[in-house]
Amino acid sequence: MRLATILHAGTQRWGVVDGQQLWPLDHVWPDLRTALGDGLDAIRAALVQVSDALPLEEARLLPPIPNPEKILAIGVNYRSHREETGREATPYPAIFVRFPDAQVGDGEAIVKPFLSDRFDFEAELAVVIGRAGRHIAAADALDHVAGYSCFADNAVRDFQRHTNQATPGKNFDRSGAFGPWLVTADEIGDPAQLELVGRLNGEEVQRSSVGLLIFSVPELIAYISSFTTLKPGDVIATGTPAGVGMKRTPPLFMKAGDVFQVEISGIGTLTTPVIDEQKGGADAVDL
Amino acid sequence: MRLATILHAGTQRWGVVDGQQLWPLDHVWPDLRTALGDGLDAIRAALVQVSDALPLEEARLLPPIPNPEKILAIGVNYRSHREETGREATPYPAIFVRFPDAQVGDGEAIVKPFLSDRFDFEAELAVVIGRAGRHIAAADALDHVAGYSCFADNAVRDFQRHTNQATPGKNFDRSGAFGPWLVTADEIGDPAQLELVGRLNGEEVQRSSVGLLIFSVPELIAYISSFTTLKPGDVIATGTPAGVGMKRTPPLFMKAGDVFQVEISGIGTLTTPVIDEQKGGADAVDL
Repeated sequence: MRLATILHAGTQRWGVVDGQQLWPLDHVWPDLRTALGDGLDAIRAALVQVSDALPLEEARLLPPIPNPEKILAIGVNYRSHREETGREATPYPAIFVRFPDAQVGDGEAIVKPFLSDRFDFEAELAVVIGRAGRHIAAADALDHVAGYSCFADNAVRDFQRHTNQATPGKNFDRSGAFGPWLVTADEIGDPAQLELVGRLNGEEVQRSSVGLLIFSVPELIAYISSFTTLKPGDVIATGTPAGVGMKRTPPLFMKAGDVFQVEISGIGTLTTPVIDEQKGGADAVDL
Repeated sequence: MRLATILHAGTQRWGVVDGQQLWPLDHVWPDLRTALGDGLDAIRAALVQVSDALPLEEARLLPPIPNPEKILAIGVNYRSHREETGREATPYPAIFVRFPDAQVGDGEAIVKPFLSDRFDFEAELAVVIGRAGRHIAAADALDHVAGYSCFADNAVRDFQRHTNQATPGKNFDRSGAFGPWLVTADEIGDPAQLELVGRLNGEEVQRSSVGLLIFSVPELIAYISSFTTLKPGDVIATGTPAGVGMKRTPPLFMKAGDVFQVEISGIGTLTTPVIDEQKGGADAVDL
């Protein structure tokens, strides 16, 4: 199943994507995060009762989980990217947090801040939790996954380096992206078999097998759940491979008019045009 | 006004604390975070209509905002603590994130993880946002504050040092605390005048004027809102002064049976006994 959240006629809806249609399920659960708490079998059962689909061409895609309680993002988790950054290996994954406002859905514009010209791209696989747990063993970890999606863990590099904590550079409003939908885990099998590609303006800038993650999806779930309870709808952005803009000669940063894409085999493509943040626009004043 | 969220007869309620009673307002807004979106004047006006109070002795206090969209915590933000840690000054605040599950309310037990014996205390002032904004000028920042509370930004030091990102050590379930209530900004005036004290088993272990913050409350709001939209109910834990357990000789870490308290002048005292995490308990299995 492909599970998506959309904005249709001004209303947030969610449901199952089938070709160019969405079979809505929001009469049963208010949002996908809540539905995941009841499990994919319950979603499949509810789908049988739905008789009317919405045409996706009339809708905008939102992040599949627009309201995760937590988004944990992993830094420097492909050897290829660790080598280009010159960082030492760490015995544990480096984890920072992204807020929900830092992501847009597929087809929406990401925003280059006016405070920086170092707006960089990062193509990643996102894991969405389906079953809650704490102290989950790596051997059981994939049983806790609802599905997978594409994630653009974009970074504002100067803000990321203001201190040793990545938070500011990873949390500019609408700087990243998540989507286009969640593909349920049963259709993916072993996430290590997935192929991840990043493209800027159609040109391939990043490519890796997800199997080359330093800390695998099961290892990440085991480590994260050693300190926090993972819950339905929680998101893990698993890290980006080599090719980021700041490590190129000359550096390659995103600017208005560019288009960044994250494509993952078996999932699909997340496409985001880049626009400039407007000074004095809606975001720049008291709300 | 003192605004609190409680658990009463198994139900989450919120309202205005008056002595040993709470005047509930959840018939108007489902939670305090939502109410803050309408402003303190609207809360005051609604209060006039409330005729029945709940006795606090029948209730448990929860964190005043149990469901913040974001909790931003500031590292090394008092010179006294920076000197004891031996860290260099940074031109910007160091920011990590705490999840809502990492805090309990006043009087609730905080949990020493079985994975670590380095469970440390950190007394802090928490700022709660009342009015949303992006790119807020420092001169206007206090107009965006709904109120203040006590915060225990406790840390599991070995997990905090697993990598350069503080996230794991600052996010063990129920490791920190937030409360007992929100005191509205009109009763506080300039937060720099507040006096902050941490006590372990009744003995003073931390003390500072909030005026000794390296980055002041207005400066923190200005910097944070340069990248993310601050929203009603968002929380900023402003940093801890000198005296933390890991920098003592010998080190002083928390263990079951201890009691940690955060007291702030004009706000009150947040008291949390320490218990051991149970292996194989409710938290230690699939949920």
